[in-house]
Amino acid sequence: MKKERLVEILSAVQSGDLTVASAAGELADLPFTDLGFARVDNHRALRCGFPEVIFCPGKLPEEIAAIAMRLSEGGGRLLATRADQAAVDAIRSVLPDAVHHERARAITLDREPAEPTGLVIVLCAGTADLPVAEEARITATALGARTETIYDCGVAGIHRILSDRARLSSANALVVVAGMEGALASVVGGLVDRPVIAVPTSVGYGASFSGLAPLLTMLNSCAAGVTVVNIDNGFGGGYAAALVNRLVSASKEVE
Amino acid sequence: MKKERLVEILSAVQSGDLTVASAAGELADLPFTDLGFARVDNHRALRCGFPEVIFCPGKLPEEIAAIAMRLSEGGGRLLATRADQAAVDAIRSVLPDAVHHERARAITLDREPAEPTGLVIVLCAGTADLPVAEEARITATALGARTETIYDCGVAGIHRILSDRARLSSANALVVVAGMEGALASVVGGLVDRPVIAVPTSVGYGASFSGLAPLLTMLNSCAAGVTVVNIDNGFGGGYAAALVNRLVSASKEVE
Amino acid sequence: MKKERLVEILSAVQSGDLTVASAAGELADLPFTDLGFARVDNHRALRCGFPEVIFCPGKLPEEIAAIAMRLSEGGGRLLATRADQAAVDAIRSVLPDAVHHERARAITLDREPAEPTGLVIVLCAGTADLPVAEEARITATALGARTETIYDCGVAGIHRILSDRARLSSANALVVVAGMEGALASVVGGLVDRPVIAVPTSVGYGASFSGLAPLLTMLNSCAAGVTVVNIDNGFGGGYAAALVNRLVSASKEVE
Amino acid sequence: MKKERLVEILSAVQSGDLTVASAAGELADLPFTDLGFARVDNHRALRCGFPEVIFCPGKLPEEIAAIAMRLSEGGGRLLATRADQAAVDAIRSVLPDAVHHERARAITLDREPAEPTGLVIVLCAGTADLPVAEEARITATALGARTETIYDCGVAGIHRILSDRARLSSANALVVVAGMEGALASVVGGLVDRPVIAVPTSVGYGASFSGLAPLLTMLNSCAAGVTVVNIDNGFGGGYAAALVNRLVSASKEVE
Amino acid sequence: MKKERLVEILSAVQSGDLTVASAAGELADLPFTDLGFARVDNHRALRCGFPEVIFCPGKLPEEIAAIAMRLSEGGGRLLATRADQAAVDAIRSVLPDAVHHERARAITLDREPAEPTGLVIVLCAGTADLPVAEEARITATALGARTETIYDCGVAGIHRILSDRARLSSANALVVVAGMEGALASVVGGLVDRPVIAVPTSVGYGASFSGLAPLLTMLNSCAAGVTVVNIDNGFGGGYAAALVNRLVSASKEVE
Amino acid sequence: MKKERLVEILSAVQSGDLTVASAAGELADLPFTDLGFARVDNHRALRCGFPEVIFCPGKLPEEIAAIAMRLSEGGGRLLATRADQAAVDAIRSVLPDAVHHERARAITLDREPAEPTGLVIVLCAGTADLPVAEEARITATALGARTETIYDCGVAGIHRILSDRARLSSANALVVVAGMEGALASVVGGLVDRPVIAVPTSVGYGASFSGLAPLLTMLNSCAAGVTVVNIDNGFGGGYAAALVNRLVSASKEVE
Amino acid sequence: MKKERLVEILSAVQSGDLTVASAAGELADLPFTDLGFARVDNHRALRCGFPEVIFCPGKLPEEIAAIAMRLSEGGGRLLATRADQAAVDAIRSVLPDAVHHERARAITLDREPAEPTGLVIVLCAGTADLPVAEEARITATALGARTETIYDCGVAGIHRILSDRARLSSANALVVVAGMEGALASVVGGLVDRPVIAVPTSVGYGASFSGLAPLLTMLNSCAAGVTVVNIDNGFGGGYAAALVNRLVSASKEVE
Amino acid sequence: MKKERLVEILSAVQSGDLTVASAAGELADLPFTDLGFARVDNHRALRCGFPEVIFCPGKLPEEIAAIAMRLSEGGGRLLATRADQAAVDAIRSVLPDAVHHERARAITLDREPAEPTGLVIVLCAGTADLPVAEEARITATALGARTETIYDCGVAGIHRILSDRARLSSANALVVVAGMEGALASVVGGLVDRPVIAVPTSVGYGASFSGLAPLLTMLNSCAAGVTVVNIDNGFGGGYAAALVNRLVSASKEVE
Repeated sequence: MKKERLVEILSAVQSGDLTVASAAGELADLPFTDLGFARVDNHRALRCGFPEVIFCPGKLPEEIAAIAMRLSEGGGRLLATRADQAAVDAIRSVLPDAVHHERARAITLDREPAEPTGLVIVLCAGTADLPVAEEARITATALGARTETIYDCGVAGIHRILSDRARLSSANALVVVAGMEGALASVVGGLVDRPVIAVPTSVGYGASFSGLAPLLTMLNSCAAGVTVVNIDNGFGGGYAAALVNRLVSASKEVE
Repeated sequence: MKKERLVEILSAVQSGDLTVASAAGELADLPFTDLGFARVDNHRALRCGFPEVIFCPGKLPEEIAAIAMRLSEGGGRLLATRADQAAVDAIRSVLPDAVHHERARAITLDREPAEPTGLVIVLCAGTADLPVAEEARITATALGARTETIYDCGVAGIHRILSDRARLSSANALVVVAGMEGALASVVGGLVDRPVIAVPTSVGYGASFSGLAPLLTMLNSCAAGVTVVNIDNGFGGGYAAALVNRLVSASKEVE
Repeated sequence: MKKERLVEILSAVQSGDLTVASAAGELADLPFTDLGFARVDNHRALRCGFPEVIFCPGKLPEEIAAIAMRLSEGGGRLLATRADQAAVDAIRSVLPDAVHHERARAITLDREPAEPTGLVIVLCAGTADLPVAEEARITATALGARTETIYDCGVAGIHRILSDRARLSSANALVVVAGMEGALASVVGGLVDRPVIAVPTSVGYGASFSGLAPLLTMLNSCAAGVTVVNIDNGFGGGYAAALVNRLVSASKEVE
Repeated sequence: MKKERLVEILSAVQSGDLTVASAAGELADLPFTDLGFARVDNHRALRCGFPEVIFCPGKLPEEIAAIAMRLSEGGGRLLATRADQAAVDAIRSVLPDAVHHERARAITLDREPAEPTGLVIVLCAGTADLPVAEEARITATALGARTETIYDCGVAGIHRILSDRARLSSANALVVVAGMEGALASVVGGLVDRPVIAVPTSVGYGASFSGLAPLLTMLNSCAAGVTVVNIDNGFGGGYAAALVNRLVSASKEVE
Repeated sequence: MKKERLVEILSAVQSGDLTVASAAGELADLPFTDLGFARVDNHRALRCGFPEVIFCPGKLPEEIAAIAMRLSEGGGRLLATRADQAAVDAIRSVLPDAVHHERARAITLDREPAEPTGLVIVLCAGTADLPVAEEARITATALGARTETIYDCGVAGIHRILSDRARLSSANALVVVAGMEGALASVVGGLVDRPVIAVPTSVGYGASFSGLAPLLTMLNSCAAGVTVVNIDNGFGGGYAAALVNRLVSASKEVE
Repeated sequence: MKKERLVEILSAVQSGDLTVASAAGELADLPFTDLGFARVDNHRALRCGFPEVIFCPGKLPEEIAAIAMRLSEGGGRLLATRADQAAVDAIRSVLPDAVHHERARAITLDREPAEPTGLVIVLCAGTADLPVAEEARITATALGARTETIYDCGVAGIHRILSDRARLSSANALVVVAGMEGALASVVGGLVDRPVIAVPTSVGYGASFSGLAPLLTMLNSCAAGVTVVNIDNGFGGGYAAALVNRLVSASKEVE
Repeated sequence: MKKERLVEILSAVQSGDLTVASAAGELADLPFTDLGFARVDNHRALRCGFPEVIFCPGKLPEEIAAIAMRLSEGGGRLLATRADQAAVDAIRSVLPDAVHHERARAITLDREPAEPTGLVIVLCAGTADLPVAEEARITATALGARTETIYDCGVAGIHRILSDRARLSSANALVVVAGMEGALASVVGGLVDRPVIAVPTSVGYGASFSGLAPLLTMLNSCAAGVTVVNIDNGFGGGYAAALVNRLVSASKEVE
Repeated sequence: MKKERLVEILSAVQSGDLTVASAAGELADLPFTDLGFARVDNHRALRCGFPEVIFCPGKLPEEIAAIAMRLSEGGGRLLATRADQAAVDAIRSVLPDAVHHERARAITLDREPAEPTGLVIVLCAGTADLPVAEEARITATALGARTETIYDCGVAGIHRILSDRARLSSANALVVVAGMEGALASVVGGLVDRPVIAVPTSVGYGASFSGLAPLLTMLNSCAAGVTVVNIDNGFGGGYAAALVNRLVSASKEVE
């Protein structure tokens, strides 16, 4: 259920165009649907601005399909992450119009897409960071943001990012995806006065300790304005950036 | 140097009100001043929206004083964090009008304070988290945000935060400060559609491992929209929240 | 050997209904049977209230079968955990009436099931936590507890657990299973005056460090009454809860 | 507010002995009192069976005194842990009848002590574990349990605990406090069919890593029925044991 | 080359039974043979009492075969550990009389076996620890020790080890192999006045962290006389115990 | 583009042999080529002395091929590391003359090989360290160094390294590759007055923690002159040694 | 009670020289004395070959004095480790003839010293390791071993240990104490065919992580025959070495 | 003993200017002097190019003085690091002309200083890194290098380092000292084709984990040519850089 629909219903009640009984009917659903193995959080779109997102690992394909169905009923929007082939097949079997983003390992559905607003820029340090960066981009897009990307611009060749310096400040928020030493977030954070969401990746080996190294690097960033999400959490990075982007864009629209 | 002043100078040059020579004079400073032991980053206010902030530990009192002097020259604004008594004395000796915030261990100076805008809410889980929460609040204030606080509302008494639920959504960004298990960030993140900056603290003992426990909790938050800064980094939390707040407020003002 | 049988034997000796020799015969078994590769702890049912449980990993199928046979001789009860298909086949080949619980990866046998008593509630935060939660439920059931479940009620949608608040206090003990940030244990612990056994799971990725994050969260819980078992140890959680449940139920029955 | 008092009030309303207005007056307090720096959780006694406990570290002495005052108003009971001399002085200044338990670093007040019920046994492995063990004992006592202690019975001299074997099974719950390798919990857990709450301590050096070693030992205990709390958390161990003890004792009393 | 052979040669030179030239011929080998990919340490039997042992992982099958050949030339003795099927096949192809110990994953060859001396007892806590325990036993045997085993005697059923208490003191050294919480080493160490070599295993899950838990337990053992080797290092445990055993036995023989 | 070519171009411009336009043409390339998924750093040979190196993991085969093509255009030199079969096939399909070094898992191309200069010695402790040692050797060779190797000379047989002591000091730099306890770096570092680059490997098991043990050993080396690179980073070790070697050789040549 | 005394008593009973009653009197003591805060393990000398040792930290001075008194009654022998000045004063006040070893931080008492037997050599890598090495030496001496020391012979100057090579093999056991990278244990282990007890120390900084680095080094030693005790546990190292030494010496004496 | 003196002696023997006896006299010293508590490594200047350096922590003042005396006898050169006031006083009492470098916490003596050669540049990220950076500079100077410094040029203000870019390539080796996220090493490493020695510092808090964060960052540097030393090991960084510098300079001189 989108927030707009809620306002519509309540306004209709206020104006007398809708009886209390009818409104109650539509609102009657509990804020969650108990599927037994899952309590689908129907009101999250209302409460947090986007339907519950399906994190696929650990769920059976039939469970994923059932949750996807239930979520898509609310407003025709869907985002499923970390989807392997079984998950893709399961969702496609019930929602054939769902789109599979292969490198991002994500599935999206948006039956009434709105015009993207604002700007979120996604950067990544190396080619191997692409799956996570793409997850961030797909997520931000799913949440309504216009997105741009600057890929493979790690700090060992600092001119690669400096050449795009001007462009960076046009974004409402930036997502910086980097593995190995993860220093890109600090460099970007020092160049702009925008929120930088840093996403460490597990790209690397040895003393990267599966992403611990860039995670610590980013948490210790001496550039203010940098905040961090979990290792490989492209979704979280894209979501947080899109949240800021929407707030800024909404402010502009309101006026 | 504030951004406004830069625009002013350049416009004056464009309009012929200022000779290139005079403009050059004012702009002549390198983007940093080399004090020998420190390269003060003069243009950061321009580049990142706020003058360089003094992180006091590890600097000699006389160094702190010299940096504070140089920074304050740019625009009469200053923020120094983790200031012990020696740092306070050093700054006060050169900037007697600087304000010491004891619990926050911070020093601020703002000779031409603007009206605070927007809203940043700072929450903390327990009384022992206050120093970090206050550092966040002072920082957000120094960066121009209107702030409110909800303190001692940890999840073991969940009604304490639920009673303030409505208020939470009025903020442009929230800072959630928590030690021990740090679960508050997830609960708050699940209640609002606003960016939540989570600040783990070293409050606790044993398996908190000096803040590692809440840090991991927050990084693994199942609530989207939660991003994390370093342990005890109230400054970072307040800064990131204020950055979002300013972007949103600026959007509103512009229209 | 069940405790009741021991009391029976000793009483019969006391009353003269049984000769010392006969009693000795039945009691003659050493407290353990040495199978060479395993010392089956025959008296554990007596000492600890339930026969030794078979933890399958690392044992050869034929060893599992042999131990299962020996244990089941004592009283017709059996619990084997972490059973893969080879373990299932091995046990079924010697005990065809053993029951395989697929999602819980457990095998049980109870030839003289008693009426379940009391109440243990098992909660889990997400669908991916189900295998561990089910292991807890099966274990508690095997130890004689009546059980209920509340699944997929993580803290990011706090209303999902609050809606079941009243029910929580009817349990003698609760098992809270959660991965990722594991905050559910604290929230539940703050709502009831019952022992909460927290079971962290390895569900998650990156900075969850295979369950370290929820483990630390739960150990640092600010809600008193929460105790913790090993990561993914649904068995341990169910066992401890059932132990409390039996003590409470037994007290009631005695009067 | 004790639960009994609540039932009393509601019964009086039901019977007409108390007007709704009067009852409302007494119940009027919010479930928490906002002291600014702390939100005192007044209803916790009702919800969780004991007033909020004051964890002293990180709180200013005047804050501790104010919280202690507010808590003690509810029912004359108080427990403050990790109290240093300043905390002791602060509480004594407002509650002169509060008792200081030096080795346990705890302060208690119980103006209407009830008869202790059931039995909680507290064991510790070495003399250096005494402060934590005593904190557990004081806490269990404060929550109404009868307590006994078996101190300095570490596994390197296994006969020390075996000699007390019979006694162990008379407890409703046991608290096992141990540092260094923490093996005592497994040994005790293997001897009884009662809940064992294991409390690792930071006693030791080197590879004990401030209590990490016994924490891991206890979490990996091969004895079922052992659950674990945070390092040095004598309070948590005593609380959980007392919770079980009260449930068992209450069951007995009810009949 | 065995030490005895060296003494023989030198004595023969001394007595004139062997020319210096002939002796030089036999002794001519460098203390190591450079195979290019490996420098086989020929004199180790002389220096350390046993030929170099082949640790198979990371070596190509043909390398293993070549090293095995070269080592076996010195005295007809060989020990290879962690041998997978390819390693077994490689060694068998050049040394068909080598023996494969399947559960121990070891290969031995001893063409002139001496009478085993002294006594080394190998204990393990659970059935899953058997591969490591067997590696210890095979190693000790290869180094000339008489061995006995007590398997599956973990501390959760303490009577299983106490029943063998008397036997323990008859050993010159004991190897205690245990995973999970690893408490067995402390209990055994407290029962005997013999060196106890503790071998932690990676048996377990979750907070065992692949053997870290029993490793720390054993390092923190409060029983003096317990020393520790690497996780799963059955070879190291057996070797150290056999070294002690040989010293003690040799002393006896000398007299 | 090699540095020599740049000097050539600029000299030709200076001397009038080349028009500015022609020079500009050749220099026109941006310092990086944006392939979309990768920003190939063309000027790195100029800036850092060697073309960008391809780290294969995480890149798609077609991406690897494209980058290899682009890099080889600059000067006919190429180095790709951690190449699996797919990577080898991809590069060979576009650069059939590229050489695959199987044990080193590396691919090289050098169409105009210069005479190797100076000397880099690569040592490794055990046979299992060979893949990493070979990666170091291949890398150093690719960067123009003459190389020698001393393999399988771990400290448990200290005479194996002492026998080569004189040779060690003839190198301009040494690469010491070792897993398990990694002590070889300290011993070598104590024998020479040359830079020693220590490369820890993940060879080992248990408490080697995938190379953490030798990493820490090497970082704590009491022998000055030892510096360390990432676990298994043979490339980094060979690169740093070759860098020193080139500087020293260049100095000699210049005179 | 020394073992000899026990044999004496029992023999006297056998021969009729002592009545059963008298023997019982002497043997009447429980195997431990319960001092309330401590259960002094009287029979440890019998069971493990040396009276219980007092580990001072965490014990109150008066407790230390009481335990020391009780232990010294058994046979006039005493060893207390990690004794600070308060502990020294406490013991001296009740046992004025106790000896304080300042650098070793140990206190010993041996009223009927026997002739030292065998040989234990204690080595340490650096001067800063002396307190731990001395604790090992004092402990081994207290347990009856003849001891020698080789101090400050770290591997960065390998000739320092090689010059003493011959002497090393004369010991029954060696204790190698080293901090920083801890490589000395492997080098020594490779030179002798004697048990080497490795004691890591917390000497060092940074990535030594308070002794973790040498601990891991030693656990991963590629030299067989090396076993390890806790960080800074000179006592444990000396005890284990002395245990071996006594076994070997006893064997010699028996013949 | 300087290498030059050794060559002199041997040449004199060769030429007949010095009798073998006299030469033997001068060379007679063992390669180390055994002071009991320390084995001073006299030949290290010969073997490694600089006398043994005194690492002060853990040594008694009188020991430091004795070692300093002995070392200075060899050639009038001395370097002592991590010197507290007691160490300074001890050395000054025997070597009054020793120089104390306060911020670097170092003491040097060089009675026959040679002309500094080559160039080592020391960079640090922040003012708080100065003590470590200065230790590196003093060390490099003591080893004969000409040094320059670029301090407080962290990556959050990337222009601060870019402005010095040209200068960087004039160094033979660079030492990059940085705490917090330690990203400076990668940026510098990407700008030059010179060896970069990265020194992580413990500057920072929280998730810097006492320098672990920058250590991991530097080890994972994607810029080739970067090698790493221990946390806060300014000495090691300066030493390694000076070693390279000397090799390069020596090459130049030789021609």
